[in-house]
Amino acid sequence: MAKVRVGVAGYGVIGQRLADGVALQKDMELVGVADVAPTLSVRALKEKGMPYKLYCAAAEKRADLDKAGIPVSGSLEDLVQQVDVMLDATNAGVGAKNKELYAKYGKKGIFQGGEKNSVADVFFHGYANYEKGLGAQFLKLTSCNTTGLIRAVDCLDRAVGVEKVAITIIRRVADPGDYHRGLTNALQIDHAPSHQALDLMTIMPHVEATGILVHTPVTHGHIITVLATPKKGITPENVREFLGDHPRIRMVSIEEGFLGNASLFRYARDLGNPRGDMYEIAAWEDSIVMSGKDVMFAINIPQESVTIPETMDAIRASMRMQEDRIKGTGATNGYLGIGKWKAQS
Amino acid sequence: MAKVRVGVAGYGVIGQRLADGVALQKDMELVGVADVAPTLSVRALKEKGMPYKLYCAAAEKRADLDKAGIPVSGSLEDLVQQVDVMLDATNAGVGAKNKELYAKYGKKGIFQGGEKNSVADVFFHGYANYEKGLGAQFLKLTSCNTTGLIRAVDCLDRAVGVEKVAITIIRRVADPGDYHRGLTNALQIDHAPSHQALDLMTIMPHVEATGILVHTPVTHGHIITVLATPKKGITPENVREFLGDHPRIRMVSIEEGFLGNASLFRYARDLGNPRGDMYEIAAWEDSIVMSGKDVMFAINIPQESVTIPETMDAIRASMRMQEDRIKGTGATNGYLGIGKWKAQS
Amino acid sequence: MAKVRVGVAGYGVIGQRLADGVALQKDMELVGVADVAPTLSVRALKEKGMPYKLYCAAAEKRADLDKAGIPVSGSLEDLVQQVDVMLDATNAGVGAKNKELYAKYGKKGIFQGGEKNSVADVFFHGYANYEKGLGAQFLKLTSCNTTGLIRAVDCLDRAVGVEKVAITIIRRVADPGDYHRGLTNALQIDHAPSHQALDLMTIMPHVEATGILVHTPVTHGHIITVLATPKKGITPENVREFLGDHPRIRMVSIEEGFLGNASLFRYARDLGNPRGDMYEIAAWEDSIVMSGKDVMFAINIPQESVTIPETMDAIRASMRMQEDRIKGTGATNGYLGIGKWKAQS
Amino acid sequence: MAKVRVGVAGYGVIGQRLADGVALQKDMELVGVADVAPTLSVRALKEKGMPYKLYCAAAEKRADLDKAGIPVSGSLEDLVQQVDVMLDATNAGVGAKNKELYAKYGKKGIFQGGEKNSVADVFFHGYANYEKGLGAQFLKLTSCNTTGLIRAVDCLDRAVGVEKVAITIIRRVADPGDYHRGLTNALQIDHAPSHQALDLMTIMPHVEATGILVHTPVTHGHIITVLATPKKGITPENVREFLGDHPRIRMVSIEEGFLGNASLFRYARDLGNPRGDMYEIAAWEDSIVMSGKDVMFAINIPQESVTIPETMDAIRASMRMQEDRIKGTGATNGYLGIGKWKAQS
Repeated sequence: MAKVRVGVAGYGVIGQRLADGVALQKDMELVGVADVAPTLSVRALKEKGMPYKLYCAAAEKRADLDKAGIPVSGSLEDLVQQVDVMLDATNAGVGAKNKELYAKYGKKGIFQGGEKNSVADVFFHGYANYEKGLGAQFLKLTSCNTTGLIRAVDCLDRAVGVEKVAITIIRRVADPGDYHRGLTNALQIDHAPSHQALDLMTIMPHVEATGILVHTPVTHGHIITVLATPKKGITPENVREFLGDHPRIRMVSIEEGFLGNASLFRYARDLGNPRGDMYEIAAWEDSIVMSGKDVMFAINIPQESVTIPETMDAIRASMRMQEDRIKGTGATNGYLGIGKWKAQS
Repeated sequence: MAKVRVGVAGYGVIGQRLADGVALQKDMELVGVADVAPTLSVRALKEKGMPYKLYCAAAEKRADLDKAGIPVSGSLEDLVQQVDVMLDATNAGVGAKNKELYAKYGKKGIFQGGEKNSVADVFFHGYANYEKGLGAQFLKLTSCNTTGLIRAVDCLDRAVGVEKVAITIIRRVADPGDYHRGLTNALQIDHAPSHQALDLMTIMPHVEATGILVHTPVTHGHIITVLATPKKGITPENVREFLGDHPRIRMVSIEEGFLGNASLFRYARDLGNPRGDMYEIAAWEDSIVMSGKDVMFAINIPQESVTIPETMDAIRASMRMQEDRIKGTGATNGYLGIGKWKAQS
Repeated sequence: MAKVRVGVAGYGVIGQRLADGVALQKDMELVGVADVAPTLSVRALKEKGMPYKLYCAAAEKRADLDKAGIPVSGSLEDLVQQVDVMLDATNAGVGAKNKELYAKYGKKGIFQGGEKNSVADVFFHGYANYEKGLGAQFLKLTSCNTTGLIRAVDCLDRAVGVEKVAITIIRRVADPGDYHRGLTNALQIDHAPSHQALDLMTIMPHVEATGILVHTPVTHGHIITVLATPKKGITPENVREFLGDHPRIRMVSIEEGFLGNASLFRYARDLGNPRGDMYEIAAWEDSIVMSGKDVMFAINIPQESVTIPETMDAIRASMRMQEDRIKGTGATNGYLGIGKWKAQS
Repeated sequence: MAKVRVGVAGYGVIGQRLADGVALQKDMELVGVADVAPTLSVRALKEKGMPYKLYCAAAEKRADLDKAGIPVSGSLEDLVQQVDVMLDATNAGVGAKNKELYAKYGKKGIFQGGEKNSVADVFFHGYANYEKGLGAQFLKLTSCNTTGLIRAVDCLDRAVGVEKVAITIIRRVADPGDYHRGLTNALQIDHAPSHQALDLMTIMPHVEATGILVHTPVTHGHIITVLATPKKGITPENVREFLGDHPRIRMVSIEEGFLGNASLFRYARDLGNPRGDMYEIAAWEDSIVMSGKDVMFAINIPQESVTIPETMDAIRASMRMQEDRIKGTGATNGYLGIGKWKAQS
């Protein structure tokens, strides 16, 4: 079977990881990536010897790339013509403009969470609504927090049914390497309900969700506390099993040494994962407590990499490479090495 | 009526504020404060001209105080003999030892949240269980987070009844001026349920409480999200009114400019409050949302100063200066200037 | 003698402190302050009962102030007409516009460091070039770092002569209460030489200065290391004496408990200083070392309040309230309580 | 020629990187690593499938490793007997104890900067005093800051001679994943002169060095400003060339996007370097300024990985694998891929 041909627009925090993710899928081919400036990420691509072809997404900025000695293989339009699917990880708002180009050539387009929902036909999550993505031309992924959160909520929902959730998002405010999105010695609160709760309801309309988001001055990993009202009686041990069996959730504990979000990043670096990335969210087994019949627990979301698997799922769904949710997400997991650790423990 | 004579053991973050608080109570007299070393706080007391007499709490360290030129008025035992009540704000564990001295002279002792519950006859909160403190010899205050949290939960409980609460504590990890209790670029999670939830149940045994605590690298003000299950149906507007009417709770909003914990500290400094302290907790009206019939909202706890009013209440209760909860807390509020802003708005 | 009448434009971090500073000068009268919006600072002014009259600096925003219930006493132009001197602490760029208004009514204008040098006739520092400010209509203060730095360098220069200085500025990146100027887990470097070094040379043209500035994610107090090449041989003990004798420099030590910038803020809060402000810079005696014949030491700059004394000096110079540098700065020191601690130690 | 057999004691932040570094040297063989507990790093080793054999360094803790399912290949003593050289990256103080074991079996021991100088015969730096390490039984590396600093100072010294240096170290206070070494919103100053300046003089006794160290709340990369007094007249352009030609120094600029220490970490992650590590220090060309005849510039030290190359050099010197400094360090560079980027630019 011919490999599905994929391009990536925007070679930043997410775009780089999408490119690396596609490169690992044996049934896909990464045709190239597009960007507009000699950013540090593009300079690193050059220093690595251009393992991916770079296309220039803005003709008027081509000179800057040339000046920095970055080899350019053509324009974004050149790239679009060669692919079956474009993954769009450009800055918010640019994707909507790029969509016209994807439409012009009849290509699929898969957008990240920063774009408005209206950019896409389907708001997508690999585990929660894989079927809705089948054959769709334009899909939008949920944001990093929502993607990780839905993994956990969908997991419980499929096991025992979830009536409602109330979440507190303790959000990392910047990515490593950011200088202008920071907070210094402050916690900042957003208007409630948080958009992540609203987004969850768009994907899982049968669940009532609300929540409060607080920004914190750290760079590695959001922590979310989830209070879920199950439809059937459950115990902490049940929750441990349900979450623990999910391929994209790691059950961790303070006792093992996972003291917080920085431990997950440390562990991923020690694993030798490129960039210290982790595709799985983590759930702390020491955090699972009951509130009446509701269950409460805490999860960790690796914001830079968490949406990569679900984006691979989106390619599989939109291109109908797999019609089945379990097989589709399973193929992604296999190529990305997700779940291997389960066999060992 | 003779003023109640009060001493303070431990002139650190809390002890200083207790001393200042007592000095404002017209029906009390601050006899003196005790400490063991020429800390910055003690040096500042000297630079201010010794408005409070200092007693040395450890004879073997007296020389250090002398060397630093700090005038010393006697020993801790000297101080204890002159007072009716000792407020103990020493480091955890020291209070239990000091208690023997207080008992020796038949004096009342009021301990802060860091001591073990066993140090006291009554675990006390001015609003939630004032009556239990009446005449008690040894009382222990709740910790800063629990004190602020109980204000809000007790307020709702008295209005409509509260069945259970599930809290997420986003805890500031250090006080300004701390160098060795810090986190750098990390969120750290504690074993659940948090002790604050357990402590709440000790004070309010008819409420089921649980929660998760996450430490964050900031120094001014904890933020707690509270999910409360009321016994009667309520609306966000009800909650706004109930909390807004409480003398020790400020209703604030993002729209006014209260973007997070740092805004409360900024505002208290701009008010000209000594040290930029605030006795009230804040509740964000923009944060109040419903989760089914449960209500969720966020509060801010000024950790350095929040327990001062409840400690003044404890003096009033233990010394039976006021038998009535509302009159007792009201007297404290009056002397501390709490609630004045309500008249203006 | 009639008091000099002073107004303040911009009631933010600096403007509030200027207003408080003027209010303490017995030979000046604070006529009022001007701002454009119901910021937290303006709301705090209201909660305090409007100790200072507020004027609205932008007619089109008057409705916002009215809506927030803030009493307004007139327009900025009304204020300007009533004063002898305007202290301008508005955002960078606004001062240049306001200058036209001050010129229209023939009033003096004193600008803070954020404005361009061209806004003023004289770039001013109370200790280093007081004489240049005598009678000038428009003066501009040096920025917070430069103001503090020049105190130390001028002090050494007057004692033994300084040939050149090389500085490293470890800059706090945001003020308490800021949410959008932050860095999170990053040190950021500026192009060298830093503007503070260049500004020093403008005020002290006989000294060669250069330096590197690194932004750090903290909110209280810059630390600067100064390497100075003196014209005469000196010892660390000399430096300790020269700096220690300066009214606006506090000599502190790690041994006493001043472990870093947070200790100075802690100490100022413990002193009961409004907002925890300190007018003096600190110099660490434990930091003074020799590099050949050069001397190196570290100072702490309290960024929110350090320029207040030199601004009071600027009023005295521009209004010729005092012709003499020592008497002029001495009058400021007396009213602000600067140097009182020296008598005690 | 038989490969040199190497063991690593202590599989923490440095030990892991030493093991990875040895594994890349084609003329060495990594026999195994030793540790005492199922830390996250050891758990990650297991999850990776035990690419390195683990030896238990404390018999009484063996049960903990067994309980965590970590395969153990023997004791530390077993490991020592199989190697030619032990790299000791245990916690400070443990190395001195381990040394007895290395001595017992007549093996070489190479210690990291945390140990006392007395543990070793030679205090070593690959570039500055390679010759001193030749054949020595016990060597101690300089600490991370000193290792990086000496690269730059030695480089200038060999080019034009350096008379003296005065440094300001802006130190990151914790490594990613640390929870108990943090600072929160504070800069902390150490007694001057800093040990790094003193250590530099031990390695380069002909240079006079002093300096001040300030701890900052960040986790990735120290920044040092260096003021060097050269023996011959030089220009910024000379310095750029000298530093730029050094294999273990990267010349970077703000203009390219290297805005601070977080950019270097970001870049190393984008390069795909394991753990986001970088062996080179960086020097900012935008930071090079003259102070009279002295030159000032800023460098970045990647604290987790910077000492790895010099430790490989130390193996080469102590085992007399290369007698020549340039060939010895060059072999290390070749195997670690250091300097490859130079050819490309």
